[in-house]
Amino acid sequence: MKIGLAQYSPTIGAFKYNIGQMVRLAGKAREEGCKLVIFPELAVCGYPPRDLLEREEFIQDNLQAMDWLMSEIKGIAVLCGCVSPNTKRAGKPIHNTAILFEEGKVLAKMHKRLLPSYDIFDETRYFEPGTGSVPVSFKGLSLGITICEDIWNDSDLFPEHNYPVNPVAELAEKGTDVFITINSSPFDIKKAAFRYNILRHLATKYRRPFFYINAVGGQDCLIFDGSSMAVDHAGKIMAQAKDFSEDLVTCDTDTLQGEKHMVSASKEETVVKALELGLKDYTIRCGFSKVVLGLSGGIDSSVTAAVAAKAIGPENVLGVIMPSPYTSEASIEDAEALARNLEIQTITIPISDIFDSYLKTLEPVFSGKDRDVTEENIQARIRGNLLMAISNKFGHLVLSTGNKSELAVGYCTLYGDLSGGFALILDLPKTMVYEVAGYLNSEGEIIPKRVLTKAPSAELRPGQKDQDDLPPYEILDLILERYLEQNTPPDRIIAEGFNQETVYRIVQMVDRSEYKRHQAPMGPRVTSRAFGYGRRYPVCHGYGKQLEIGN
Amino acid sequence: MKIGLAQYSPTIGAFKYNIGQMVRLAGKAREEGCKLVIFPELAVCGYPPRDLLEREEFIQDNLQAMDWLMSEIKGIAVLCGCVSPNTKRAGKPIHNTAILFEEGKVLAKMHKRLLPSYDIFDETRYFEPGTGSVPVSFKGLSLGITICEDIWNDSDLFPEHNYPVNPVAELAEKGTDVFITINSSPFDIKKAAFRYNILRHLATKYRRPFFYINAVGGQDCLIFDGSSMAVDHAGKIMAQAKDFSEDLVTCDTDTLQGEKHMVSASKEETVVKALELGLKDYTIRCGFSKVVLGLSGGIDSSVTAAVAAKAIGPENVLGVIMPSPYTSEASIEDAEALARNLEIQTITIPISDIFDSYLKTLEPVFSGKDRDVTEENIQARIRGNLLMAISNKFGHLVLSTGNKSELAVGYCTLYGDLSGGFALILDLPKTMVYEVAGYLNSEGEIIPKRVLTKAPSAELRPGQKDQDDLPPYEILDLILERYLEQNTPPDRIIAEGFNQETVYRIVQMVDRSEYKRHQAPMGPRVTSRAFGYGRRYPVCHGYGKQLEIGN
Repeated sequence: MKIGLAQYSPTIGAFKYNIGQMVRLAGKAREEGCKLVIFPELAVCGYPPRDLLEREEFIQDNLQAMDWLMSEIKGIAVLCGCVSPNTKRAGKPIHNTAILFEEGKVLAKMHKRLLPSYDIFDETRYFEPGTGSVPVSFKGLSLGITICEDIWNDSDLFPEHNYPVNPVAELAEKGTDVFITINSSPFDIKKAAFRYNILRHLATKYRRPFFYINAVGGQDCLIFDGSSMAVDHAGKIMAQAKDFSEDLVTCDTDTLQGEKHMVSASKEETVVKALELGLKDYTIRCGFSKVVLGLSGGIDSSVTAAVAAKAIGPENVLGVIMPSPYTSEASIEDAEALARNLEIQTITIPISDIFDSYLKTLEPVFSGKDRDVTEENIQARIRGNLLMAISNKFGHLVLSTGNKSELAVGYCTLYGDLSGGFALILDLPKTMVYEVAGYLNSEGEIIPKRVLTKAPSAELRPGQKDQDDLPPYEILDLILERYLEQNTPPDRIIAEGFNQETVYRIVQMVDRSEYKRHQAPMGPRVTSRAFGYGRRYPVCHGYGKQLEIGN
Repeated sequence: MKIGLAQYSPTIGAFKYNIGQMVRLAGKAREEGCKLVIFPELAVCGYPPRDLLEREEFIQDNLQAMDWLMSEIKGIAVLCGCVSPNTKRAGKPIHNTAILFEEGKVLAKMHKRLLPSYDIFDETRYFEPGTGSVPVSFKGLSLGITICEDIWNDSDLFPEHNYPVNPVAELAEKGTDVFITINSSPFDIKKAAFRYNILRHLATKYRRPFFYINAVGGQDCLIFDGSSMAVDHAGKIMAQAKDFSEDLVTCDTDTLQGEKHMVSASKEETVVKALELGLKDYTIRCGFSKVVLGLSGGIDSSVTAAVAAKAIGPENVLGVIMPSPYTSEASIEDAEALARNLEIQTITIPISDIFDSYLKTLEPVFSGKDRDVTEENIQARIRGNLLMAISNKFGHLVLSTGNKSELAVGYCTLYGDLSGGFALILDLPKTMVYEVAGYLNSEGEIIPKRVLTKAPSAELRPGQKDQDDLPPYEILDLILERYLEQNTPPDRIIAEGFNQETVYRIVQMVDRSEYKRHQAPMGPRVTSRAFGYGRRYPVCHGYGKQLEIGN
């Protein structure tokens, strides 16, 4: 039997649009001779709908859309994800369900059993888990159908597994011929390799082919990378869909032959494609067509502008150069050279007059006080305000240009450089920003060479350099990866050989800047643990602060 | 047996401080003749620790603190909440546990069974639920011990109950003499009455007395109101602790007599006390002693300033009057009169020069464009920047002054009036702001009368009035309560008799301003459903937008 993996990009709650796309792709799969077409987890409503799932009208519209889909698709069977009501009295009111239907008739329903509640996942907030897994007989094949997390519980791969049940093992015992798993699995740079490991392991362990369909698209801070695939019973890839774009690949369960499309060849290519997709979908889905960002001549704004130009076209990117008396000539030259290379429009708005008027207005209040970080923040906030004014006047989306290392330690200004609707490189550690810049330059200079070699500086006071205030980024990023992504206790980071004082200082900086992250713009997730709703810390707490807290 | 309800205020992760407070209160209870003292849920580490619970070192420190507590308290038994490790291989690694100990020896441990995962609660993210409930025999009494949500599942009170088990019923069946429930139950204005209803219902249903201990204190956007109590088998209150402050009340299980302390007498008093506690704890726990806010002469900033002065003392509140050409004389007079009444310090910083310099700087960019909301936002952002500059220079916490109605419909400026670390009245609908103002004036004029009677205006353009842009607040707030708090579908709100066009317009305004709430400061929760981490909506989605979304 020929099966189509329809890797599509739903928009949350845009039921009419979503159904239209699904009908189109099902038709294409039918034309290619498929008997069954498979769509991702929650394909009908998009993933994750979050608290929209608590709205009765959303659930009703989702059910109506499902009915419509069933009446529209003829001549091919469909397996897709959908919300369905929990008919029992106890428990959460809905299930996360996989529905198999053909010619308007439901052949089988399976509810997701393992509901992730960690990192960015909140599925126990909404869904009642399914109980028991039974293969579905379809055209002479016994299909073992699971949903996303259901396969992330093999005791060989997850010795610290969280769930007491294993749907894959149950389905194997009950005589599955072919495993199918439908997913909306968000991207991070380690995910694709890990996913293939799981599929290969399960396929070879149970000696059955495994079909894996994933969603694609950018949804707020999440990127769904697609990369759907089918592996045979030996773990060999039979079919492979593209990463980061809609795709349809077919694979035959008899011949074990399928289509293989190209995926990204390097980590840097992967990251750039992920950011492009995240930005493109955020702008379209929020109703923007153009973006604006400040160009400082530094590496962060250069990479942000370069990726934005690739994502939505240089004609839709406006760079604003906002020099102050502390801005070097070199920075302005570099910003202008970048804009020329990218063929994006720029405008220059000097901030000195506004800065002077702030200083003059505040003189009576600040008299006798030395200059400090206050005056640096005022400059950053003027720039933020100017970008927001352009956004308000002309309708551009403001891109914030901060990176993960800065946000982690609070080396950024609330309402200043943290202004913006979307922070494109917010989850890229500074060292990764350099790697991506190198990749972007690999076919010719896009980002001026000097941007990659000069010492990073915010240029908010004379002669300022990042490394006067922070440890070298090479060290900082290694410590941050351990503390933030791997949750390694500080003492164990020190035991790995890092300087004790540096580790404690960085940990303290991270802990103390939680309030900035609380109001930071969102940005697409790239690492295995991003700031935002996948990392939920209290803003005020006394842990590790050695504060003597009074009454 | 005399039991002490030690209603205390833990600081999250401040183990040393927390243990010190618990030892002090246990000593006090012992002196008053108690044989048992009871502390709230997660008393040792504070609630909610959120992702600190994922840190190994936090769990270890919590266990060490528990050992220390057990070794320090003599002469009285203790029941308290604590994190404990899950010793089974499967499941989440920790439990939310109630520990009963005496003279350094653990007598019993009960794990929380019903883990809330809705609204602000994320307990399935961290905890493995307990299984089975058995009463504990202690000094001749059979104690039925539960933790918070464990009692929120009676089928009479919650016909739509979510959980398949009922720990209270199980404990009653197994011969409980006295029920004890330990809680960290966050405040909202409807909560205290609802809680008493549950206790009265369960006590009379099972004909047993019920001891209810709650935490107190402000933790980020949550207020724990205390209001601990004991009710007898007829549902009559035997003991009552204060609301919104630390307290210790005792109650005897033989005589059914206990201490009764005063609680707030009106909704408005409750709200003011809640806000005071929230602000006081936020400032102390984040290391601030002073606050600064803009005084516009309007109702929002007046109420914010008045509550702040009550909470942390007028000497710690700085009001900044920031007139523009659109600011009326009346507004300045009202702001100054308020400051005199409150005895708070003010400074006046006119924003016209800075505003002019923005306009002049942007002239080449905006040439030919009409004035619009852009110029209004610039004014709001200048004010936000000035407050932040004072914060940066002098170390004040900036209080944001927006209300819930404004934030709901997006009638507020990101990086402008939404600047600030804590937004004191962010969860008060505008109509409630007026009610609170009336209460604050009940013993003499604090807020100038004209502030309560004049039409609300942002004064960002000549003659501007809120009601030119929004429906009357009396209507707006009723619709918002239904849409936001009760999750009522728009069609059903219209069926209640509200104007169809108004309802759709408001729903659309709410949905479209999700991006502003994403970057808004936190404020204390007052209603049953607040913005912030209790309401999790996608920023970009297509639901209800009737957008034709392109590719």
